[in-house]
Amino acid sequence: MGDGNLDVRVYFQDTDAGGIVFHAAYLNFFERARTEWLREMGVTQNILKNVYDMLIIVRKINVRYLRPGFLDDLLTVRTSLCEMRRAQITVSQTIFRDNEELIWGRINLAFVSVKHRRPKLMPNILREQFNSFCNC
Amino acid sequence: MGDGNLDVRVYFQDTDAGGIVFHAAYLNFFERARTEWLREMGVTQNILKNVYDMLIIVRKINVRYLRPGFLDDLLTVRTSLCEMRRAQITVSQTIFRDNEELIWGRINLAFVSVKHRRPKLMPNILREQFNSFCNC
Amino acid sequence: MGDGNLDVRVYFQDTDAGGIVFHAAYLNFFERARTEWLREMGVTQNILKNVYDMLIIVRKINVRYLRPGFLDDLLTVRTSLCEMRRAQITVSQTIFRDNEELIWGRINLAFVSVKHRRPKLMPNILREQFNSFCNC
Amino acid sequence: MGDGNLDVRVYFQDTDAGGIVFHAAYLNFFERARTEWLREMGVTQNILKNVYDMLIIVRKINVRYLRPGFLDDLLTVRTSLCEMRRAQITVSQTIFRDNEELIWGRINLAFVSVKHRRPKLMPNILREQFNSFCNC
Repeated sequence: MGDGNLDVRVYFQDTDAGGIVFHAAYLNFFERARTEWLREMGVTQNILKNVYDMLIIVRKINVRYLRPGFLDDLLTVRTSLCEMRRAQITVSQTIFRDNEELIWGRINLAFVSVKHRRPKLMPNILREQFNSFCNC
Repeated sequence: MGDGNLDVRVYFQDTDAGGIVFHAAYLNFFERARTEWLREMGVTQNILKNVYDMLIIVRKINVRYLRPGFLDDLLTVRTSLCEMRRAQITVSQTIFRDNEELIWGRINLAFVSVKHRRPKLMPNILREQFNSFCNC
Repeated sequence: MGDGNLDVRVYFQDTDAGGIVFHAAYLNFFERARTEWLREMGVTQNILKNVYDMLIIVRKINVRYLRPGFLDDLLTVRTSLCEMRRAQITVSQTIFRDNEELIWGRINLAFVSVKHRRPKLMPNILREQFNSFCNC
Repeated sequence: MGDGNLDVRVYFQDTDAGGIVFHAAYLNFFERARTEWLREMGVTQNILKNVYDMLIIVRKINVRYLRPGFLDDLLTVRTSLCEMRRAQITVSQTIFRDNEELIWGRINLAFVSVKHRRPKLMPNILREQFNSFCNC
């Protein structure tokens, strides 16, 4: 990490009987990478919940499967900000094996209140950092 | 089923600490429903593999999360054909709780050879049935 | 169901690159079957939580993998009560394909308060039904 | 790693609506740790399959859930050898949060041929290393 990248290893738990990574497993890799990307900005899920009374929920996903991933692969997930609104962000996430792009994704996320899941303004600490590198 | 619908129950395994169904779990519900939809047309994954030397792989997904699903919900997944090419189909899948639409998805799938995952013409038995109800 | 049995189909999501059902997937099948078994006794997870302020948590699992399950298999999960204490039960769960036993499990579960996860007496409605068929 | 330890972070994907780590998710953490433990000895799943024509399958698991894990926890999985036979090993795996033991497991694994899943003698490279630290 440090650059918005997370390495993930492919285990049996991520594969299916077709001999490749199961398509939904990449959403798990994406979630891990987004969480670490936010953690680098100083915002963990626990801080969001306990300090800001917020959750982040997924509103839209758009994923293209370009090449299959395999057991034992070491993959890199890159996360970057595409778009920011007051209570929403859209991130671009891509998964690479060496220099080969396997998966391309665009994920739209909303900041909502924990209890009723109503839209909430994102924390300032995030807004300020997002402002500085909106690059997609 | 019979009408391209599959009922799925939400268990703890499908939920997350946000108290709702985890976003990637809906892709599992979609996969179950697509598989049963094909089974109704006489094509199981084993027949595809052993008779036709084929796998179906996911090429693109596009999902919108309209409302959250909760533990114990009984959901209905509706699957219908949107578009057909020689070695590809696009299906529309929606998930309902009673009459409320929770999730909307469009999934693009390819028929490929088992070993090298090269595009293959889909089985005729499927093409003929798809021809009769392309409705999306 | 009706007899403490639940049928589950094996999908790609349940398998791994070894070509068989991934070992942890059976715990999901077990959880689905236990939940339906309790539902038949009139106790859903929502009733437990909202009426009794309780959760059921897993304390011990003991599983033997006798034969592999495969893609497209239709499996049957049988659940029965082994042992009952005031705030705990132990269930026996087995998974069959036709008459062949694939998986044997024994699961120890505790009834706990939602917030602090302290042991709580199980609901009477369950205790009475458990008393009538402790058979393992 | 280096000492048979693997750190794993808890994400939403690992939790359930009870607000804690879902019980089957720990089996995934165990699998990741076993795989890395073998990798340190020079044996990846791909080497096992392609060089030795072998898979490792799970035969028995025995797990005790001592304390719950939570979202954002950084957990450590320790793996050590308990017992070795010609075509089987038993490993002890424990999961800690700081110095607190959350999960205790003992897993029995078999080395089998890829195609027919018949028992096979484990690779010498593993047998020799296992001989040097059987400690459970």
